[in-house]
Amino acid sequence: MDERFSIGVDLGGTNLRIAAYTTGRDFLETVNLPTRLALGKEQVVCDMAEEIQGLIQRFRPSHELVGVGVGSPGPLELPEGIVRNPPNLPGWDGFALRAAIETRVGVPVWIEGDANVAALAEWKLGRGARDRVDSLCALTLGTGVGSGLILGGKIWHGLTGMGGEAGHIVVETAQGTPCGCGGAGCLEQYASATAIVRMAEERMGVLCTAEALARMAREGNDVALAIYGDVGRALAIGLTALVNTLNLPLYLIGGGVAQSWDLFAPAMFAVLREQSYVYRLTEAGHCVCGEQLSTRIEVAELGSSSGLLGACLLPFYATERKAPLTGV
Amino acid sequence: MDERFSIGVDLGGTNLRIAAYTTGRDFLETVNLPTRLALGKEQVVCDMAEEIQGLIQRFRPSHELVGVGVGSPGPLELPEGIVRNPPNLPGWDGFALRAAIETRVGVPVWIEGDANVAALAEWKLGRGARDRVDSLCALTLGTGVGSGLILGGKIWHGLTGMGGEAGHIVVETAQGTPCGCGGAGCLEQYASATAIVRMAEERMGVLCTAEALARMAREGNDVALAIYGDVGRALAIGLTALVNTLNLPLYLIGGGVAQSWDLFAPAMFAVLREQSYVYRLTEAGHCVCGEQLSTRIEVAELGSSSGLLGACLLPFYATERKAPLTGV
Repeated sequence: MDERFSIGVDLGGTNLRIAAYTTGRDFLETVNLPTRLALGKEQVVCDMAEEIQGLIQRFRPSHELVGVGVGSPGPLELPEGIVRNPPNLPGWDGFALRAAIETRVGVPVWIEGDANVAALAEWKLGRGARDRVDSLCALTLGTGVGSGLILGGKIWHGLTGMGGEAGHIVVETAQGTPCGCGGAGCLEQYASATAIVRMAEERMGVLCTAEALARMAREGNDVALAIYGDVGRALAIGLTALVNTLNLPLYLIGGGVAQSWDLFAPAMFAVLREQSYVYRLTEAGHCVCGEQLSTRIEVAELGSSSGLLGACLLPFYATERKAPLTGV
Repeated sequence: MDERFSIGVDLGGTNLRIAAYTTGRDFLETVNLPTRLALGKEQVVCDMAEEIQGLIQRFRPSHELVGVGVGSPGPLELPEGIVRNPPNLPGWDGFALRAAIETRVGVPVWIEGDANVAALAEWKLGRGARDRVDSLCALTLGTGVGSGLILGGKIWHGLTGMGGEAGHIVVETAQGTPCGCGGAGCLEQYASATAIVRMAEERMGVLCTAEALARMAREGNDVALAIYGDVGRALAIGLTALVNTLNLPLYLIGGGVAQSWDLFAPAMFAVLREQSYVYRLTEAGHCVCGEQLSTRIEVAELGSSSGLLGACLLPFYATERKAPLTGV
């Protein structure tokens, strides 16, 4: 028993990914199954618990178990891990997810919003570890726009666990597109894959994926290029709020849409430079106490495994807040 | 020598206020003088140092000196206290203000942005102390819009001391008014006293103060009422970014414009409720771990003395981070 291990769960609306993890960026073993939402939340927890127990049995003889970490769609009430009106888990409102899993697996379970675990992974194993920062904001551009904040070496929860909802910063004040959150003009309506599909349909009358539109843009299609330009502008308005308010060293952009960085980043940086004087003053490096400090905005490093890695890191993070995480 | 005391300096573009302070909300003695900017920054520091030394001599026989705290217009590089392109202190760019004062007075000097010291005062002696929160955001609506963040029991500086510039969140994306920061559509252009004067001139062709416009609004003038409604809407868009991203328990609105709370708050709350689902979910109180938690947005309590009180608190805060501040 020279090594400690954790189990991580990346709970998505479509896929349920579970892994046993010890150190570094690699998993001991991973399991992928569908999230059987149609069979009810109890069935999803049952499927999850069965695989968790299987992994525990497999690795406990040779490793010491730290606990189980779960990354879940939000909003969540923390630390209890009660799900609140999750758009991607219909019918789960009020479900005490953490307690339900813990009862079934009989070992300590920690839960966090999926964007927060992705931020944790990027901080401990990705870009944030390389840059040795103790604060960062990780935006995930996928079906929606999620965001996780690490502030002063801690996952930032806010009052009720709802901190980090940067996807709902208002970036369009004139006839903003209505958002699932009840507002209008939110960042999520202009920078998610869903938004890109909608803009392609509105402006080109075609139904295509965000990736297909990116290919069209790279082949020189003007409308496709303009849509990605607008993605960049929307990100810049959202980043202006974050950069001016928080003055963090690192902002990471991940999720599927981040693969089109080449298409949206030029407009994003141009508008951010115009709008945020804190960014302008710190972009090239700002000398403080003889140290050259700069605001960096970069592509997230861990790709689609950040959610599962972050879930695996969660029990280590929660139990060893003062000791360094393994593998870092 | 049973009591400890500090000296606080509230450095403004027009007035220089200096006080000796021991506990609670009252000062031992205050001194007000003009900020003689036209005579150069060295003269301002000289005027300041003379009064500080006078107060030290008066109170040192009976009290133990903790140090001197200064609230200064920003942006500042911290902890060195170097002034960077301050719009209200022309010609001071690059000035090592903290070091200049320390050299002259020969006792330890701490410096913070004026919005941060106001947030510190509200946290330790005002609304935040009454509500026993460890995080808050204090917006000051004056000539500009300043903001200070207390996160997890600490003044939030960000990477280079420029955190908390919520006045430059973009709240108008269609033909936003150009801002002194180089951007356009910033909160400061819609919610400061300066912005209110500009809107009155644009829409009514009259040159009047924000207070005079507030009187007109209270007498039923439709255009004046609409201007204050727009102030509320702009604040709501800025608050949406803050509430959704940080999920803090308390947001305070201070500065001269806050006296027109009755005129802008209805529109502010209406738009915030529409735009921020985190606010909607937490407005009435949100039960977490059996505790009723809510997001509160309120008028700052300490009025125009918050800057000077916060400057006085600064040496206590800096030297006794673990011990409670006196008078709290």
